[in-house]
Amino acid sequence: MKVLLVFAHPERRSLNGALRDVAVAELEAQGHEVRVTDLYAEGWKSEVDRADFPNWPRDEGLRVGTASKKSFEAGNLTDDVKAEIEKLLWADTLILQFPLWWYTMPAILKGWVDRVYAYGFAYGVGEHSDRRWGERFGEGTLAGKRAMLIVTAGGWEEHYSARGINGPIEDLLFPINHGILYYPGYDVLPSFVVYQVDRFQPADFERVAEQLRGRMQTLETSGPIPYRRQNFGDYLIPGMTLRPGLGEPEARGFALHVDAGTAE
Amino acid sequence: MKVLLVFAHPERRSLNGALRDVAVAELEAQGHEVRVTDLYAEGWKSEVDRADFPNWPRDEGLRVGTASKKSFEAGNLTDDVKAEIEKLLWADTLILQFPLWWYTMPAILKGWVDRVYAYGFAYGVGEHSDRRWGERFGEGTLAGKRAMLIVTAGGWEEHYSARGINGPIEDLLFPINHGILYYPGYDVLPSFVVYQVDRFQPADFERVAEQLRGRMQTLETSGPIPYRRQNFGDYLIPGMTLRPGLGEPEARGFALHVDAGTAE
Repeated sequence: MKVLLVFAHPERRSLNGALRDVAVAELEAQGHEVRVTDLYAEGWKSEVDRADFPNWPRDEGLRVGTASKKSFEAGNLTDDVKAEIEKLLWADTLILQFPLWWYTMPAILKGWVDRVYAYGFAYGVGEHSDRRWGERFGEGTLAGKRAMLIVTAGGWEEHYSARGINGPIEDLLFPINHGILYYPGYDVLPSFVVYQVDRFQPADFERVAEQLRGRMQTLETSGPIPYRRQNFGDYLIPGMTLRPGLGEPEARGFALHVDAGTAE
Repeated sequence: MKVLLVFAHPERRSLNGALRDVAVAELEAQGHEVRVTDLYAEGWKSEVDRADFPNWPRDEGLRVGTASKKSFEAGNLTDDVKAEIEKLLWADTLILQFPLWWYTMPAILKGWVDRVYAYGFAYGVGEHSDRRWGERFGEGTLAGKRAMLIVTAGGWEEHYSARGINGPIEDLLFPINHGILYYPGYDVLPSFVVYQVDRFQPADFERVAEQLRGRMQTLETSGPIPYRRQNFGDYLIPGMTLRPGLGEPEARGFALHVDAGTAE
């Protein structure tokens, strides 16, 4: 298997750096091929702007979607973005690793998504009609591949539990797991989340490293989160609301989009 | 009233730019004082890294929280960050305006949060004990001030409804409204969200501009989202879970943290 790990922490000599080494070593020990995009080390540019679309007319207001579409079609995206797209096509599995800052990913990783997820590549794919609404959420360019998050958090696990003040971790990560990874086709594995990382002791690290090795060993075989596919009957098109009767009476909000009937 | 509007769109000649003009003009017509941070125009740096903490020892691994704390205490944050902190202290009301990209804010605005929200300023404020868990979620440096989002989305309103495939808009914005704005003390007003912006016609713009003017007219007086305060009995400390019996039986997930009994 080919694995791309996108790493978004500013310090290589950090817990995140050490966990990255554990993940990569375990994957390689299993015979997998691993590539790493280290966003900070590579000086990744985070902002979508005019410089991303060198062929966009200089005197015309920038329309990001249109500029992205035209540039992707013409092969005119910038080299850093093209290299990442090539890596995404190469990899069977994508891992995004980051510290949870203000309840989501750091800006540099959001900037990787904003810039690499081009129109025609990650979105705007396929026909929009009264039967289908683009190839997304279960279809798409990256369908058949797997993806997973490795996340560190300063807060306690309880603070991110069902009734915790931060909100449930699965809801905080839903816009990433569902909206960024499932959207262009990935099968999304449950996230690997480490809590209270500011108080880590060597014994904590050993425990977590062992859990992470276990997750890397089952990366190819474990079951994904059973998100509902968009174009296969569960949603009304084009309103894109869940068909009445599904998810009732228990589910609400983000949880509606997980098919509890097929959950592990 | 003093209002700070943080603007995060790469194109001034855009719908977002036009809505910004509408908001600023209406606020000034009401006699308010308005300042704008235009992140793209100012070339905002999005990435938290070592350069943000010039006094951090060169041979020591960067620990972001600690570096942020020490730099804030010593007044050694970078000038761009210090200027934003000064603006936040100056303003009675903060408006964040951005296009919804991949279900959340663009990287450049996340980078504003990641860098400006220093330890000791926006978090890590107040005592942590068995009665209080820092001054946050209802208390904090920015308590007594108001905040609100102005958001544009390409998708349809129905796609962001209670059963829409993207997830409900209030849940998508919860990590920002609750986790970023309510956290350091802001009273958070309901967001102003504009949908299907890629298909905007002049009549659509006039309709939305009028709605936005209305929101700007009531910015000082309208009721905030009734989020539950952390240190006043609703949460068990230090687990920070909502006290049993509250939010039952209907609420789940993020909605637990809104006190429906006091909702408008």
